Amino acid sequence: MTGGPLEDPDASEGPLSELRAQIDDVDTELLDLLQRRLDLVSQVGEVKGRHGLPIYAPAREQTMIAAKRTLAEQHGISPDFIEDILRRCMRESYTQEKNMGFTRQAPDLGPVVVVGGAGRMGALFARMLVLSGYDVHVVERDTDPDDAETLVSEAGLVVISVPIKDTVGVVRALPPLREDALLVDLTSTKTEVMAAMLAAHPGPVLGLHPMFGPDVDSLAKQVVAAVPGRDPQASRWLVEQIRLWGARVHEVSARDHDAAMSLIQAQRHFSTFAYGLHLAHEDHDLTELLALSSPIYRLELIMVGRLFAQDAELYYDIITASPDSLVLLQRYHERFDEALTLLRSGDRAGFVTRFAQIGDWFGPYAERFLTESRGLLAHADTTR
Amino acid sequence: MTGGPLEDPDASEGPLSELRAQIDDVDTELLDLLQRRLDLVSQVGEVKGRHGLPIYAPAREQTMIAAKRTLAEQHGISPDFIEDILRRCMRESYTQEKNMGFTRQAPDLGPVVVVGGAGRMGALFARMLVLSGYDVHVVERDTDPDDAETLVSEAGLVVISVPIKDTVGVVRALPPLREDALLVDLTSTKTEVMAAMLAAHPGPVLGLHPMFGPDVDSLAKQVVAAVPGRDPQASRWLVEQIRLWGARVHEVSARDHDAAMSLIQAQRHFSTFAYGLHLAHEDHDLTELLALSSPIYRLELIMVGRLFAQDAELYYDIITASPDSLVLLQRYHERFDEALTLLRSGDRAGFVTRFAQIGDWFGPYAERFLTESRGLLAHADTTR
Repeated sequence: MTGGPLEDPDASEGPLSELRAQIDDVDTELLDLLQRRLDLVSQVGEVKGRHGLPIYAPAREQTMIAAKRTLAEQHGISPDFIEDILRRCMRESYTQEKNMGFTRQAPDLGPVVVVGGAGRMGALFARMLVLSGYDVHVVERDTDPDDAETLVSEAGLVVISVPIKDTVGVVRALPPLREDALLVDLTSTKTEVMAAMLAAHPGPVLGLHPMFGPDVDSLAKQVVAAVPGRDPQASRWLVEQIRLWGARVHEVSARDHDAAMSLIQAQRHFSTFAYGLHLAHEDHDLTELLALSSPIYRLELIMVGRLFAQDAELYYDIITASPDSLVLLQRYHERFDEALTLLRSGDRAGFVTRFAQIGDWFGPYAERFLTESRGLLAHADTTR
Repeated sequence: MTGGPLEDPDASEGPLSELRAQIDDVDTELLDLLQRRLDLVSQVGEVKGRHGLPIYAPAREQTMIAAKRTLAEQHGISPDFIEDILRRCMRESYTQEKNMGFTRQAPDLGPVVVVGGAGRMGALFARMLVLSGYDVHVVERDTDPDDAETLVSEAGLVVISVPIKDTVGVVRALPPLREDALLVDLTSTKTEVMAAMLAAHPGPVLGLHPMFGPDVDSLAKQVVAAVPGRDPQASRWLVEQIRLWGARVHEVSARDHDAAMSLIQAQRHFSTFAYGLHLAHEDHDLTELLALSSPIYRLELIMVGRLFAQDAELYYDIITASPDSLVLLQRYHERFDEALTLLRSGDRAGFVTRFAQIGDWFGPYAERFLTESRGLLAHADTTR
C-alpha cells in the first residue's frame, strides 16, 4: 500500500493513457473476431436451414459451452465469464437467424390464413410462416366478408389470433373449412376455445399459446404451449416448424394449461398490478428510490414498472380470462392476510417456520434461483 | 427455400463440422484476447490503486462504450451486442479488482475495530479495510470483554455490524471511545440507531447502509446509503474509501432513508413472502410451471424463489425493523383489496384507468424499465 489521499492523480495519466490505448487495440481486434464468429454461425444457420435442422440445439450448445469452460480453466480465466460471453454471442446469432429462411415442413399445405394477422402476435406468426416458404394471407375486421370466406374455406391452415375475449365468437363465425385443414389458435387460455374449435371444425385442431410477447428478439428458448385437439398426426408438421424457429414446444392438456396459466400469468400480473397501485399511491420520489436501489432492488422495481408500459386491455384480459383465476386470487388474498397477521403479531418463530416450509416447497430450485439471479444481476446496469 | 421434411439431415454433417471447427478456432483466439484485455485492465487497476483513483469511473466507462458502439456500427455489428460484451468484460475486471489493494484514505487513523466482524457483512467490510491498508481488529461475542474494551477504546474507527435487533443494545454497551474516533454502523434502518450512536459517542458519527448482500462479486455499482450523524468532515475519508472500492455513496437523512427502505425492502420482501406462501399452498408441480415459463415468467419465479434460499431471520428483521413498515403494509393490503374488487366486479374501464394512472406515476421509467428488462431477459437462461 503506497501513498495517501493527497497524492497527485495527474501523475497517473502517462501510464494510464498508454494502457488505455492498448485496451483500445484489443477491443478493435475483439470486434473483428466477434464479427468473424457471427459470420461463421450464420453460415451454420444456412446449412441447417437447407437441411431442415432446428436453429436452436440445446444439447450441442451444452457440450460446446462445457468444452470452452474447460479451456477457460486451463487458461486461468473464469469459466462463468467465458460462458457468459459465448452465450451472448449465441443470442446475437439467434437474433440474426430469426430473419433467415426456414425449411418448409409441409410442402403441400396450400395457403395459410391468419385471422387477426394485423395484430402483433398474428403478424409475428405470419412473418415466420412467410420466412418458412408458406403462402400466407391475412384476414382482418376490414377484409371484405366474401374475400375472407373464400380465403378461409380454401386454406390448409387457419390460425386464429384475435383478442382473448373475441376468440370464441370468431371461431363460431368461421365458414366451413376444408375437411383436411388444420385449425389453430394462439389464445392464452385454452379450455373454452378448444371446445369452440372442435365444435366448429370436424378436421384437425391444435391449440397453441406462445408464452412470449410479439416483440421478442428471437424465438430461440421461448416456450409455446401446445394443447392437442384432434388428429395430432395432422399438426405434427406445425410443431416441427415451430421447433425449427427455435422455440420449445411443451404439450399440455387444456385444463392443466389453464390451471398453470392462472398461476404463471393471472396471479403474477395481478400481483404486479396491486404492487404498482400501491407504489403510485404512496407517491415516494421514484428517482430517490432508484438512487437508493442496488442492482437487485432496481431489478425488482423494473419488473413492476415494465408492466405499465404495456397494454392495459391485454393484461385485464389475461387476468380475468379464466373464472378459476379470480378464485385463485381470492385464495392469494387469504394468504396475504395470513402473512400480514403473522408479522403484525410479532410471531418471529411462525414466520421462520413458514419461510422454511416455502423453501422446502421450492426445494433445490431456491438455491438455483439465487445463483441464477446473481448471474442476471451482473447484467443489471444502473447507468444506461 | 429448398427441401422438405424428408430431406436427409446427415447430408449436412460435412459442411457443418468444418464450420464448427472454424468456430472453435475463433473461440480459442477469443479466449486469448479476453485474457489480454483482463491483464491490461488489471494493470490499469494497479496504476489507479497507486494513485488513489477509484476503480469504478462511470463517466469514462460511458465515453468508452459510446466510442465502441460507433465502431461497431461502422463494422455493421449491433452496438448493443458489443456493449454487452464489453460490460461483461468490465464486470470481470471489477471482480478481479475487488481483491487488489486500495489506497488508504486515512493514513493516520490508527486501529479499526469491527464489532460483529465475524458476521458476513462485517467480514466483508473488515476485508475491504484490510485491503486498503488499515490495521483491522474484530470483536465478537466470544472476545474476552477486557480485550474488547481495550480494542474499542483505542480505535480510530469503530464499525458496528450486528443483527438489526441487537444494534442499539450493542451501541449502548460500548465503552467510551477515543474523542476523535469515528463511530459507524451498517444497519438497514437508521432512525433509532443514529440516535443511539449520537448519545453513546460525543465525537464523529456516520450511519451506513450497504444496499447489497455480503456475497456480491464486486462493490462496483453497488449502493451504500450514508446518513450524516456528527462532524461530516471527520468521516469524509471513509466515504471516499468506499467510493474507491467502487460503490456509489448516496447521502440521505435517517427519516428519508427509513421511509424509502420501507418501500424498497420491507414492502418488497413482504410481497415476495406472501407470494411464495401462496405458491407453496397451491402446490402446483413446480417443474411443470417452469416447463411452461418463457424467460420472462421464469425470471418472475426466480425473483420469488431466491428469497427462500436465504436467511429467514434476516428477512423477518428487515420487514419488521421499522414500525412504519407495518403501517405501510396495512395500506398495501388495502390497495390489494381495491385491485381485487376492481377485477371481481368486472370493471374493465376502471382497471384500464388505474393502469394508466400507475403508468403516469412511473413516467418515462415504465418504458425504460421495459427496455432494460428485455436486455436482461436475454441473459435469463433456461438451460443451466
